[in-house]
Amino acid sequence: MRPIFQITALAACLLSGTAFANGSSVRNEPISPIQPIQITEPAKVELGKQLFFDPRLSMSGVISCNTCHNLSLGGTDNLKTSVGHRWRSGPVNSPTVFNSSLSIAQFWDGRAADLQEQAAGPIKADVEMAMPHTLAVGVIQSIPGYRSQFAAIYNDEQVSLNRITDAIARFEETLVTPNSRFDQWLLGDDTAISAQELAGYQLFKSHGCVACHNGPALGGTSFQKMGIIEPYNSSSPAQGRIAVTGKDADRFSFKVPTLRNVELTYPYFHDGEAETLAEAVAIMGKLQLGRNYSDQEIEDIVAFLNTLTGDRPAIELPLLPASVDGTHRPEPFK
Amino acid sequence: MRPIFQITALAACLLSGTAFANGSSVRNEPISPIQPIQITEPAKVELGKQLFFDPRLSMSGVISCNTCHNLSLGGTDNLKTSVGHRWRSGPVNSPTVFNSSLSIAQFWDGRAADLQEQAAGPIKADVEMAMPHTLAVGVIQSIPGYRSQFAAIYNDEQVSLNRITDAIARFEETLVTPNSRFDQWLLGDDTAISAQELAGYQLFKSHGCVACHNGPALGGTSFQKMGIIEPYNSSSPAQGRIAVTGKDADRFSFKVPTLRNVELTYPYFHDGEAETLAEAVAIMGKLQLGRNYSDQEIEDIVAFLNTLTGDRPAIELPLLPASVDGTHRPEPFK
Repeated sequence: MRPIFQITALAACLLSGTAFANGSSVRNEPISPIQPIQITEPAKVELGKQLFFDPRLSMSGVISCNTCHNLSLGGTDNLKTSVGHRWRSGPVNSPTVFNSSLSIAQFWDGRAADLQEQAAGPIKADVEMAMPHTLAVGVIQSIPGYRSQFAAIYNDEQVSLNRITDAIARFEETLVTPNSRFDQWLLGDDTAISAQELAGYQLFKSHGCVACHNGPALGGTSFQKMGIIEPYNSSSPAQGRIAVTGKDADRFSFKVPTLRNVELTYPYFHDGEAETLAEAVAIMGKLQLGRNYSDQEIEDIVAFLNTLTGDRPAIELPLLPASVDGTHRPEPFK
Repeated sequence: MRPIFQITALAACLLSGTAFANGSSVRNEPISPIQPIQITEPAKVELGKQLFFDPRLSMSGVISCNTCHNLSLGGTDNLKTSVGHRWRSGPVNSPTVFNSSLSIAQFWDGRAADLQEQAAGPIKADVEMAMPHTLAVGVIQSIPGYRSQFAAIYNDEQVSLNRITDAIARFEETLVTPNSRFDQWLLGDDTAISAQELAGYQLFKSHGCVACHNGPALGGTSFQKMGIIEPYNSSSPAQGRIAVTGKDADRFSFKVPTLRNVELTYPYFHDGEAETLAEAVAIMGKLQLGRNYSDQEIEDIVAFLNTLTGDRPAIELPLLPASVDGTHRPEPFK
């Protein structure tokens, strides 16, 4: 699919008579286009994909990474908070896995430095997959169809948490969504977005939304306090980055979420309390910028945000290697 | 992928110097090869695939058809009994969806005449997706990306349970697994199975397993009592076909499950109590045939059963159309 994305973007530019080189923006904007991915380690990406979809990494045998970061949806589960092991509720809204490699850190509080570190967390967390890491490694190690892949990629059959999360992270890095209409506009196609969408972008820029929602992902580049002008009232126990730094100034500071594909990643905020984009924009305007947006302004900004939906990657469903008699069996009801 | 299957089967026959026409068996056996599918309604199959993978058909927003009939695994969840809404446990083992169109009826007790009738059951069942049909229809009807597909397929935008299950059933009919090594042997390739695997098949045939496990699916053609020679002891509340017919003679009578891909569909029996194929073969021999199989006989039969693993269909993960502000939201914790 990658070449198709590139050809499409190229065609769009040629049609609009605009020259561009190497997918870089021809407009001088604080947002840059998502670059198509070049896969350099296909065998590892394929292994990571299998592990991403494998529910045997959970104690119950029914929860995989894809359960909460559903690649058929917006790379998330569209729930306020996720359903985990034994139907437990997660503490925060599951962020999208799409374009997550573009973030400075992982999790809402940034407690994981990168995707590999992140991937280990939900496997073990008792409100998510509830699988002791040693047991997860043992299950994968027991499966011949996995062992042979580890051997081909890492030169020996040894399965480890480090290798499992390395492969998952390399797969996740491929989950970028280029070619949104806004990116086509950034690349020079004036017809890619409407006048209203452009007006929404101008508001987004001139009112300061872009101060935090910038870069290729329109977010993920900083931690910011939720509730700058006015405090945010939430029943969520999450206190944000203070959990990592221990600094009181970081209380209620969260990683700025990406706005890529935000049309698909409802509901919004770390607690998932904003059901619609219009609601989220109104609250952000008030709490972060001290603005009471008119219905028209909200409509324009939402119209702009809907131009950020890119091409989700085409993924062939992995066919997972079978367990053998000795493989530890899932225990959903134990 | 279909043409590839056909070419492979053809190549195998050409290589073995055997002529065959139209994929039909050249050997006179009570088992026939799985035929590759010809998709005649691709738009409906695509719609059905999306619905099959869509967790919004469940009250929680996390359970789809694919949760319990996982196409990355053996078309089932490999659990004794499935995990449903609010972590409830299903009453019986989830049967594989692969080759399920080859069965005379659906469900272990055959209470659904066909795949379309079957598909409606789990959506509503409170131990499965727990979604009232009217609500399920309303959710799909609210989504523009679904409405346009219904309009293109059914000539109007109206979404109904009947159309939803029609599309799901048409997709499920495509989930056949041709080209197993046993099918290659049936088609004339003497080298496709080993001497031990052939010996296992001879036992399977001469001891009477094939009396029930016959036809292209090696099963699915009749209802049989579980425990003919000796009663089967189970803690499962399921009583089988008596629930449909009301006849006492049908107590503990279940649809004979397919043995296609049985290597992938562990654990076994309607209650999922047999963890391994060896265990299942030993119990079947004793209870249904009055035979105490030797370790060697069990090993040979299991070797044969492992030749029944076919090519699982290559499926591109569907990209589901987004909900809109008015779409009813999932309520996992309500």
